[in-house]
Amino acid sequence: MERIERHACCGGWQEVHRHRSKAVDGEMRFAIYLPPQAQTQRVPVLYWLSGLTCTEQNFITKAGAQRHAAEHGVAIVVCDTSPRGENVANDAAYDLGQGAGFYVNATVAPWSQHYRMYDYVAHELPALIEQHFPVTRQRAISGHSMGGHGALTIALKNPGRYCSVSAFSPIVAPARVTWGEKAFSAYLGSDRETWRAYDATELVSSANEQLPLLVDQGDADEFLHTQLQPELLQAAAEAAGHPFELRVRAGYDHSYYFVASFIGEHVAYHAAALRG
Amino acid sequence: MERIERHACCGGWQEVHRHRSKAVDGEMRFAIYLPPQAQTQRVPVLYWLSGLTCTEQNFITKAGAQRHAAEHGVAIVVCDTSPRGENVANDAAYDLGQGAGFYVNATVAPWSQHYRMYDYVAHELPALIEQHFPVTRQRAISGHSMGGHGALTIALKNPGRYCSVSAFSPIVAPARVTWGEKAFSAYLGSDRETWRAYDATELVSSANEQLPLLVDQGDADEFLHTQLQPELLQAAAEAAGHPFELRVRAGYDHSYYFVASFIGEHVAYHAAALRG
Repeated sequence: MERIERHACCGGWQEVHRHRSKAVDGEMRFAIYLPPQAQTQRVPVLYWLSGLTCTEQNFITKAGAQRHAAEHGVAIVVCDTSPRGENVANDAAYDLGQGAGFYVNATVAPWSQHYRMYDYVAHELPALIEQHFPVTRQRAISGHSMGGHGALTIALKNPGRYCSVSAFSPIVAPARVTWGEKAFSAYLGSDRETWRAYDATELVSSANEQLPLLVDQGDADEFLHTQLQPELLQAAAEAAGHPFELRVRAGYDHSYYFVASFIGEHVAYHAAALRG
Repeated sequence: MERIERHACCGGWQEVHRHRSKAVDGEMRFAIYLPPQAQTQRVPVLYWLSGLTCTEQNFITKAGAQRHAAEHGVAIVVCDTSPRGENVANDAAYDLGQGAGFYVNATVAPWSQHYRMYDYVAHELPALIEQHFPVTRQRAISGHSMGGHGALTIALKNPGRYCSVSAFSPIVAPARVTWGEKAFSAYLGSDRETWRAYDATELVSSANEQLPLLVDQGDADEFLHTQLQPELLQAAAEAAGHPFELRVRAGYDHSYYFVASFIGEHVAYHAAALRG
């Protein structure tokens, strides 16, 4: 593991590291914000999953989350959205291949060689973080758009691993919208039964842990009625009796201006859960 | 004038506009954040000047200033750092030409045709803003690096126009450092006497208004001892009896992580001055 960036920020340190990942069989980068409290004690961790086209940079430069993480004494870990590199399968489209890993373990060639972002985020990355940084094993998870899908599905698939989960503008039903259908067809193949394991609206129906789901959604989001449709998750959660809160924000779009506007509320929400 | 971006942000609106500028004889873009208070009343304006290579985008996406502007009821206007376009003189280097206007009125060809950023920022832009947006004529000005130089010099050259001025990591003595020597040689020519009109350490010596100068500076800034040297302005201000405050921040570098960490203090500082 090699540290490639380190900046003082809001009393703590914003770092970026690269390392060899077994899960994706290649180099991965992640960012970690260590709040001032981490200089003297172990702190809990909020994992952030980004959306289509993003790297570990978008959230750390645009969301302004460090100020809130410093206030609450929470570390924030941000990973890339896919494996990368010349030897990694790719596609010219922005919504498939590099920058669009969809947080699944691909089972279909050529994607299956490296696209194992589910294993990376759910297992390898937390183990690495907990080995090398002054953090506790208290974990929360959140994300934006494709990353909101990742946060919801990874939390639902791993009962007990996360104290809390939230999502901004998430793709809640990838198996039923064009972004998800395209990605899942490529990564998982044509058998739609296999897609259910990565679809929050399917997973919530059979969840054996009642971890509340918090979703923040702008009502001027250009993808709201096509790719996102949070009402699908709301209906599935209600049918399953699963705690679910949808915060609809008038006038807000899909951009990081939306995330930056409400990330403070989410960090506070996760901090309360992480404190237990 | 045409609005080309509009995003809800922190209860207000982050907008980007383009317009035909007389000062630079070409199209210019600027960003304006209108806080929630601007929906019902006129609000004062903080002008922000960015550093080398920046456009109007860097500050609005990276500094997280909107949250503080919304809290204090201040609009923030951010302009580009030079004229742009295929017909505008340029240089392959990052520190000359497009993205590096240095907030001067160039007097030497080919730069003199469009590079009149001083007139644009000091006169044309405020007039445009005050004509088209719900703002008062209470103005503050700040900036980063080359933009810190711009903020200090424009405030010092225009007594009474600004209620307050501050700068992050400013180039305080451009006539004595390589960034400034290169730019001023090109834009203003070889007669160093003409450079004094755009050098804060020269201007403070003869200022006929005692507007306090607030400078924030990271002590791990990679340009501190070469291009910045805030102690030169400190000495000149002390010699002139001009109020000056230097806030040195341990561990902070030249990046927007530094700006984001302390922009809240600066917005509060300007808001207090703007309220009178």
